[in-house]
Amino acid sequence: MKDEVFFGEGMARVKKDYPELYTAIVGLNEAAYTGKTLDYKTQKLIALGINAAASDERATRKQMMSAMKEFGVTKDEIVDVLRVVLLTSGMPSFNKALKILYELLEK
Amino acid sequence: MKDEVFFGEGMARVKKDYPELYTAIVGLNEAAYTGKTLDYKTQKLIALGINAAASDERATRKQMMSAMKEFGVTKDEIVDVLRVVLLTSGMPSFNKALKILYELLEK
Amino acid sequence: MKDEVFFGEGMARVKKDYPELYTAIVGLNEAAYTGKTLDYKTQKLIALGINAAASDERATRKQMMSAMKEFGVTKDEIVDVLRVVLLTSGMPSFNKALKILYELLEK
Amino acid sequence: MKDEVFFGEGMARVKKDYPELYTAIVGLNEAAYTGKTLDYKTQKLIALGINAAASDERATRKQMMSAMKEFGVTKDEIVDVLRVVLLTSGMPSFNKALKILYELLEK
Amino acid sequence: MKDEVFFGEGMARVKKDYPELYTAIVGLNEAAYTGKTLDYKTQKLIALGINAAASDERATRKQMMSAMKEFGVTKDEIVDVLRVVLLTSGMPSFNKALKILYELLEK
Amino acid sequence: MKDEVFFGEGMARVKKDYPELYTAIVGLNEAAYTGKTLDYKTQKLIALGINAAASDERATRKQMMSAMKEFGVTKDEIVDVLRVVLLTSGMPSFNKALKILYELLEK
Repeated sequence: MKDEVFFGEGMARVKKDYPELYTAIVGLNEAAYTGKTLDYKTQKLIALGINAAASDERATRKQMMSAMKEFGVTKDEIVDVLRVVLLTSGMPSFNKALKILYELLEK
Repeated sequence: MKDEVFFGEGMARVKKDYPELYTAIVGLNEAAYTGKTLDYKTQKLIALGINAAASDERATRKQMMSAMKEFGVTKDEIVDVLRVVLLTSGMPSFNKALKILYELLEK
Repeated sequence: MKDEVFFGEGMARVKKDYPELYTAIVGLNEAAYTGKTLDYKTQKLIALGINAAASDERATRKQMMSAMKEFGVTKDEIVDVLRVVLLTSGMPSFNKALKILYELLEK
Repeated sequence: MKDEVFFGEGMARVKKDYPELYTAIVGLNEAAYTGKTLDYKTQKLIALGINAAASDERATRKQMMSAMKEFGVTKDEIVDVLRVVLLTSGMPSFNKALKILYELLEK
Repeated sequence: MKDEVFFGEGMARVKKDYPELYTAIVGLNEAAYTGKTLDYKTQKLIALGINAAASDERATRKQMMSAMKEFGVTKDEIVDVLRVVLLTSGMPSFNKALKILYELLEK
Repeated sequence: MKDEVFFGEGMARVKKDYPELYTAIVGLNEAAYTGKTLDYKTQKLIALGINAAASDERATRKQMMSAMKEFGVTKDEIVDVLRVVLLTSGMPSFNKALKILYELLEK
């Protein structure tokens, strides 16, 4: 399985209770992250940007943790994503993501 | 000026009518796209993903045109961005961006 | 009063402090849920879908609790709503709502 | 194929250019609309509500057309969906969807 | 009727076809704009900011036209609203609203 | 510095780690709130309306606290903003902001 971000506890239950739905989600996830030219890390940074721009704290935290653990994505790289979030989506989204980043770094 | 996407006709008027606001926008734009580690092209792809995820047709079209013209970004690379949009933001956003992409390619 | 979901503690204060605003909200609520052809349960499932698609945890939880308690809506019916959320709005919204559902079921 | 709404011209190209992505989308669509207990028509009305609440004109129009043509969904039923949109998402979303509905009815 | 913005052609039909829904909407509108301390013009500028921040072109245009015609709101006042939109919601929303403003001014 | 709302702990770190980004944010903030005709308080109420409409609890709370402390904005004035949020953005956003307001008032 390529992306563990979306496959937490909830997904384990979907697998058991709704196996055909689980299969579709796995298929979607595989097709999303099996890009033709962009590498997986770049696609993950795009997902992080989208989640942060949408002010989604839970998804932003998961994507940041996954990016740092799986790909060794650095603080500077994440801030470079958040610069784009600031420009496209404004201060509240940027602030929220920044706070999550510093919390994760201090752990 | 690094990014011409955001500097169309409207911005020319802001420059003339509200020069101090214009200066702030230029400063923001410079700071956003002068990343420390990610290159400009990657940051532009992130901006494209955010705009497409937000179902913003106008910004999506501008980002796609800019990406293809300035960086020679290919159709496959854009589709790799849109795969992430599909996963994170659903079919309507994906469909809208896909339609814009094929329209631009046919021109 | 038809829908208790929107009438928690905050609304009790609005009733006391801003009675004319309260009256308008009650009128809106009545007009919204007194459909001509769709039954109340179906309208509540639509509200649940909209709240979950908007990644609104608080409103999603309230709608799920109300749907299960007032109408005996089942887990399978809620998952059928969330399938549509997945398709139209992507994985983060779906995951968030799924997590809320399983938390409510375990209580 | 159950739902033709999402399978317009753009999707025909995805099928040809990115067959593995197309397969995943078909799988997602099947899993989304093959509910266990809610019927397909109810799921489509939920999708309509979500699209209208998100102020997505293109998707709202497609869902309305599909609902009326495939299921004989009536004007009153759609207005019952839009009542929920008004309550959960405010006047601009409601107005936009209402305008689309009346335009479709007059054709 | 205080606010003509929301009462275009669509609403005339709601009045005829769904009078009880129309009554609720009028009540909501009255309660919304009959503030206790803020004047109507300030409330309209807030509505404009919200619509522009949500990238809603149709509602933004209607609010701008209404603000200029009903209250003699000036270009500078609208730009002052859009400054806040830029800070809270990013460049694409700001750009879209700016373009609408200059189009209206040139008519 | 005019607006302390956006300059909490996270921003102190940006100042130290990414000084050129910090400078751009300060410039943006200054340009946003140095309106030509609307006063600062009105601009802050617009920002509050936008944050509440976007269902952003964190930003809404910060804006309310700042508005009450810096400008002596009253409960009635904030409710007048929230009336517009209700009309433009629906009950869930309104409810969330109302709850935050009453919590702040009871402290």
